[in-house]
Amino acid sequence: MVSLTDVQKAYTRIKHLVNHTPVMTSRTLNQLFDAQVFLKCENFQRVGAFKFRGTCNKLLSLTEEEKQRGVITHSSGNHAQAVALASSLLGIKAVIVMPENAPQVKVDATKEYGAEIIRCGNSVEDREHTCTQLQQNHGYTLVHPYDDDSIIAGAGTAALELIHDVGPLDYVFCPVGGGGFVSGTSIASKGLCPKATVIAVEPREADDAYRSFNDNTLYQSTYPNTIADGLRTSLSQRTFSIIKSQVDKIITVSEQDIIRAMEFVWARMKLVVEPSGAVGLAGVFQMKSQLKNKRVGVMISGGNVDLQTFFQTYYQQIQKKKKRDKELH
Amino acid sequence: MVSLTDVQKAYTRIKHLVNHTPVMTSRTLNQLFDAQVFLKCENFQRVGAFKFRGTCNKLLSLTEEEKQRGVITHSSGNHAQAVALASSLLGIKAVIVMPENAPQVKVDATKEYGAEIIRCGNSVEDREHTCTQLQQNHGYTLVHPYDDDSIIAGAGTAALELIHDVGPLDYVFCPVGGGGFVSGTSIASKGLCPKATVIAVEPREADDAYRSFNDNTLYQSTYPNTIADGLRTSLSQRTFSIIKSQVDKIITVSEQDIIRAMEFVWARMKLVVEPSGAVGLAGVFQMKSQLKNKRVGVMISGGNVDLQTFFQTYYQQIQKKKKRDKELH
Repeated sequence: MVSLTDVQKAYTRIKHLVNHTPVMTSRTLNQLFDAQVFLKCENFQRVGAFKFRGTCNKLLSLTEEEKQRGVITHSSGNHAQAVALASSLLGIKAVIVMPENAPQVKVDATKEYGAEIIRCGNSVEDREHTCTQLQQNHGYTLVHPYDDDSIIAGAGTAALELIHDVGPLDYVFCPVGGGGFVSGTSIASKGLCPKATVIAVEPREADDAYRSFNDNTLYQSTYPNTIADGLRTSLSQRTFSIIKSQVDKIITVSEQDIIRAMEFVWARMKLVVEPSGAVGLAGVFQMKSQLKNKRVGVMISGGNVDLQTFFQTYYQQIQKKKKRDKELH
Repeated sequence: MVSLTDVQKAYTRIKHLVNHTPVMTSRTLNQLFDAQVFLKCENFQRVGAFKFRGTCNKLLSLTEEEKQRGVITHSSGNHAQAVALASSLLGIKAVIVMPENAPQVKVDATKEYGAEIIRCGNSVEDREHTCTQLQQNHGYTLVHPYDDDSIIAGAGTAALELIHDVGPLDYVFCPVGGGGFVSGTSIASKGLCPKATVIAVEPREADDAYRSFNDNTLYQSTYPNTIADGLRTSLSQRTFSIIKSQVDKIITVSEQDIIRAMEFVWARMKLVVEPSGAVGLAGVFQMKSQLKNKRVGVMISGGNVDLQTFFQTYYQQIQKKKKRDKELH
């Protein structure tokens, strides 16, 4: 299993590439909870999400031969962009398999970072098949988004930085999807603060980790239908094992809880976070009564959200105004 | 005229009350301009805008008798909330005159901070008349949003912090509306870095400062129609004099420039800034060719923007889903 030492080694390996992200606090939040709440803001990480940490660690752990052959992954989310940017910075060829129905904006962003995009059918089987074929034909190394010790150790460096910056914590809240982030976070947190309580927070609409944890049986996520698109994936055997040994409790939050937490962070703290990124804070709101006088760390996983509709209204407003002005003159 | 010493004294006076706001940087921005760009993020200031600094300085400069009689202002924007919060923290009675057509959300926010709200007609004359009447009847001290030396000195503490934190700057970009922020900013910047070039940036749709500066005649803002609602006000004689002596250049930016700069900050830097807050950065984009290898400070004035429509779509999404789920079961 991944250890604190692995996380520390990962940090030494990646620190020249990753952003040391800021920890944000809010008087309002502290007053609301009568506690000290620290938000570790991975929305400020490169590519806008913690995913960049694990990917850097993975790529830097490859052999020279593997580096020369290149890497592959299938994703249409933050992981794709993380692999694309990290590979480009390290001079490693990256192939990203993306389904035909992936949003063009995400395809473009990934391409911009310098990765080669290969489209495939929309089912999980299509993606995996395309990926396996390309691996076999070209000898690419697969960079899995979470089912990988190097990825987990890299993800853990965010909590490492947090505790290094603010000191020991009583509670650490972290969202859980595939389990990579909470695995790394819990290993770092328990390693540095053995008394800390680590809470994984999951959308109720994708509660496979919650059910797996409580029944001690690994379930797959079935028809996850949550706004927190980064958390629709299922645990792997690897992340499930770590979670069982390191996480104290998994709690679930409703879609409304997630949006409310997200709205709080945008409106009151002036930070752009994505729905998945606000899930940890939604958990803090739920456990309010237990946090009095505690030092609480909250992992904000990312800030990549589609702002097109929002800014569209602004652009439309000035278009209308221009038209009106023209008619007047 | 307000001096660097006044700004420094203001800082000593208010530093226990205000947030020492972070300076944010972006690799993308630095690469784009081939420069070092520092954003002074007053969107993280209390009440979400730099206005809180000047108000604190003003209130702390009152005599005991004035404090006991209370203060008054007319505003429906960030200034109202700044006066409300600062007064409440200092135990001073505050009366805010707001027009009947002020958005309820702003009225509520100001009330929440503990101020007394008095409604008046919608014209500027109505507001001023109501204000004057109340001043005469109750002996309240007027806290003007910018035409006041204490307010200007307080506003200057943001640039003071910025230069203290990052070192000398070659350029400082600051939005201009009534001129309080750019007055304080230029006094602090020129005081600490005499060689710095201070650029005031104004929406083209409210270009009274630009025209006044170039014609050396104080004009009023006529029918300002800009998305940057914080910058629709006109200079006063006081701020005009300071700007003439301290600011090197005023440039104007289009509505599209403002929205683009705002979108950049939200999407790439994950910061919620209001349209007025992004105006300084819009100026940086415009002057790109002159900034190579320079150290550039950008004053981000605030982050109070109406997010209701944006979050409404999220809430609607989950309502629809709930309804659909109900129909299915």
